Amino acid sequence: MATIPQFISQKLPSIDFNNIPLLKDSRLRSGQCSSNKSLVPGEPEGPCVKTEIPGPRSKELIKQLEHFQMVGTIQYLVNYEKSIGNYIIDADDNILLDTYTNISTIPVGYNHPKLLDLFKDECNLKSMVNRPALGVYPGLDWPGRLENVLKGISPNLPNIQTMMCGACSNENACKSAFIGYKMRERCGQDFTEEEKKSCINNQPPGSPYLSILSFAGGFHGRSLGTLALTHSKPIQKLDFPSFGYWPIATYPKYKYPLEENCRENEETDKKCLQQIEELFEKQKSCAPIAGVIIEPIQSEGGDNHASSQFFQKLQSICKKNSAYLIIDEVQTGGGPTGRFWCHEYFDLPCPPDMVTFSKKLQTGGYFYTDELKPKHPSRIFNTWMGDPGKIILLEAIIDIIRCQNLLDQVEKSGEKLICGLKNLEKEFPDIIHSVRGKGTFVAYDGNSPKTRDAIIKELKKNGVQAGGCGDKSIRLRPALVFQEHHVDIYLDILRKVLKKVGGSKQKC
Amino acid sequence: MATIPQFISQKLPSIDFNNIPLLKDSRLRSGQCSSNKSLVPGEPEGPCVKTEIPGPRSKELIKQLEHFQMVGTIQYLVNYEKSIGNYIIDADDNILLDTYTNISTIPVGYNHPKLLDLFKDECNLKSMVNRPALGVYPGLDWPGRLENVLKGISPNLPNIQTMMCGACSNENACKSAFIGYKMRERCGQDFTEEEKKSCINNQPPGSPYLSILSFAGGFHGRSLGTLALTHSKPIQKLDFPSFGYWPIATYPKYKYPLEENCRENEETDKKCLQQIEELFEKQKSCAPIAGVIIEPIQSEGGDNHASSQFFQKLQSICKKNSAYLIIDEVQTGGGPTGRFWCHEYFDLPCPPDMVTFSKKLQTGGYFYTDELKPKHPSRIFNTWMGDPGKIILLEAIIDIIRCQNLLDQVEKSGEKLICGLKNLEKEFPDIIHSVRGKGTFVAYDGNSPKTRDAIIKELKKNGVQAGGCGDKSIRLRPALVFQEHHVDIYLDILRKVLKKVGGSKQKC
Repeated sequence: MATIPQFISQKLPSIDFNNIPLLKDSRLRSGQCSSNKSLVPGEPEGPCVKTEIPGPRSKELIKQLEHFQMVGTIQYLVNYEKSIGNYIIDADDNILLDTYTNISTIPVGYNHPKLLDLFKDECNLKSMVNRPALGVYPGLDWPGRLENVLKGISPNLPNIQTMMCGACSNENACKSAFIGYKMRERCGQDFTEEEKKSCINNQPPGSPYLSILSFAGGFHGRSLGTLALTHSKPIQKLDFPSFGYWPIATYPKYKYPLEENCRENEETDKKCLQQIEELFEKQKSCAPIAGVIIEPIQSEGGDNHASSQFFQKLQSICKKNSAYLIIDEVQTGGGPTGRFWCHEYFDLPCPPDMVTFSKKLQTGGYFYTDELKPKHPSRIFNTWMGDPGKIILLEAIIDIIRCQNLLDQVEKSGEKLICGLKNLEKEFPDIIHSVRGKGTFVAYDGNSPKTRDAIIKELKKNGVQAGGCGDKSIRLRPALVFQEHHVDIYLDILRKVLKKVGGSKQKC
Repeated sequence: MATIPQFISQKLPSIDFNNIPLLKDSRLRSGQCSSNKSLVPGEPEGPCVKTEIPGPRSKELIKQLEHFQMVGTIQYLVNYEKSIGNYIIDADDNILLDTYTNISTIPVGYNHPKLLDLFKDECNLKSMVNRPALGVYPGLDWPGRLENVLKGISPNLPNIQTMMCGACSNENACKSAFIGYKMRERCGQDFTEEEKKSCINNQPPGSPYLSILSFAGGFHGRSLGTLALTHSKPIQKLDFPSFGYWPIATYPKYKYPLEENCRENEETDKKCLQQIEELFEKQKSCAPIAGVIIEPIQSEGGDNHASSQFFQKLQSICKKNSAYLIIDEVQTGGGPTGRFWCHEYFDLPCPPDMVTFSKKLQTGGYFYTDELKPKHPSRIFNTWMGDPGKIILLEAIIDIIRCQNLLDQVEKSGEKLICGLKNLEKEFPDIIHSVRGKGTFVAYDGNSPKTRDAIIKELKKNGVQAGGCGDKSIRLRPALVFQEHHVDIYLDILRKVLKKVGGSKQKC
């Protein structure tokens, strides 16, 4: 079993990226200690709900918090000392099977013993507590740790930049696209004096009219820059100034089941791609497109999938128009689709220009091509540029995924989950439909927003923490240690819930 | 001595903000265990430089890192296991007195034993490792921890929102200003359908033409939104689209010594304030000003100070025009000026509307008024909304500041430092001038950018890590445990350096 590198003191060889095999083939599937048994010793046998949720203790704490923080989005307070594996345990000792995992951020379940052990090591502890400005004074262990991460999970891209969170990663990927676009335009020339003077006052030519193409229904963060790329819910965007001249394309929305709607869905792809080509043309005269940002599966927007052919053609349109393709794997990255990166499914002829990540990976960041390396220092920079404490966690998480063969586990659990859900959509066609997913990154739709909300509410009452997305979808985002027996529990409870929701629907 | 609260299980009383005394009066000055002795046991007696910097080991590691990360801004690699207190120790065992502290982010020196002890506690460890989505599923300990922080350091503002970093804090403070501005305009009405539809496509009226007024020379972050507020160096802004219609005012730049230039500096204030009033008028017809963001001391821009009168009048202009005043204390907050918040010096008749923070406080975030609480949930939201691991550190840092009377220490060291520097500017008038500062948040100017760079280079050769800002300034950003004997070491070395730089200047 691979151990967590504590301190890389010997000189490491440089990476030969030609010799890094595709992830799905080996890197994260080389574990030898997989097992059919429970991956999480000490997990409860199932959920157990004792009070309404939020219960009295949660309510009391929310009331306390309300004096000095907004609490409108808080569901309940969590006992993180007790929560374990796939089970989140709330302030009132209710035990919930967690299929939402703190908005898809908990990769290997709660309180994984290997993660808890990490900071008993003095070097790890000191790296975390003495958090440096990584762009200026990184620690001795930083190059080795970063190289380990890169070797473990790079989507065949040679460079990595860590950041703080998903929005910050997407912000900086967009900045890299603008830098790359202008570097190419300048053909090696330096900035002009006019550019330097004008940019200080936010004016062109230094602050040029360039754009990033994004997709309707997409979500890339909630900073002002990434909000201009986010188009999922008005409540996230209302009242904030934006880049009104950035183009927005249609993301394909397919009919399900896919196998019965091939021709129609192909037609959808075609229309969407044509619109993108038109937008590239249209933008040339006002605000050329420097980059295209897209989720492999639109998550917040409703778990919308697009075909491999769509992504292949999108990449080709980008190349034709010299725009950088940014794949936002903030929610899909880290294994939940059964591959470490979801875009591996698309069989792109070459890697995307950038891949952004965060959430399950604990640290934000992005991988990028050599072409995108800025000519000048300090172009992509901020005070912290990430956090060593999170890289220490990520190193261990990669090790756990490899050692416990978690990508295989996700595939197995995912197959069982999708199969079970498809049976349920046949059994309850008036309540749910459009089951879809890769690995355990699975969703289905309620027949109306109201039905969806009722299902989520009933699931919680029955011991399952679920999450919604889009207008009427339920998304599953379990940890990678979600096994077949957890699938059984989930499906049993869901069946009970659908019966109840169906019953009350009939009564209406 | 106060202990770090591990777990707040009992119901805490709600806060009465009328009874929170001003910070400078008591909250952080109530320690009873202050001492004149060294605050950092085990610190070296002084700097010790053995190799060029970066030395051979640093160079080797930079070469390794260069294969997969940009390294243009990296000075050297640091041994964070060995670094202690005010001394940063590099990969080649060079020991430097650190007056820059990782861009002003290390509050109580390297490897403070109290900080290292924190994560031996199981509750703290689990809070840090199981990092939740704080806006939805905070841990049991979160309300208590946040209340402790608020009680300890709130700048007389009743609400707090944690964030990830300084840029993220300023982004969300600006969003809060836009929300507040539009809430007032709507007089309790809900969003219109037209607003909801248009904002999804980044168009008005949902994405309105509103603006934030910022200042020439200011720095508020490098995300696209905050970059529109940042006007310090072209390299940070070139090639990125911006909000060209956001107004930029002149920050006062005073002549030093202040006592000899009173009339001229008052005139400067007057002109700046008049321009701000004019900008408010001008913006009304195109993009009204929802908020004004300003640093109490422009740091990255060159340690530019503005008078208390300037800030008082700025607040009054904001109130007259119903714009929110955001004080960006990302660099000044946390005690380096001798008060926990630098704006305490300005004796504002009432608190600013928002105060943003990060760096020394480990977590980003902002304090805000009740008026700025959004009517709808999920208006200010992202996945993590901060990080419990950083709040655990902040709680302990506040305790250390209180217990070791560090604000008093900063005042004492600052007085000695400024006095010594004023003597040196008299001794070397052709090399340095314009000594200025509050506490140990001190700067002086070289007589040219070249001279400044030479001084910083020589300081490093002689064992002092210094930092530059603006065109030709040197900024001191030591930790709060920088004591009088460290000031002596700094001044001795600087005198030697100025002699050398002066000597080579004469030779030129």
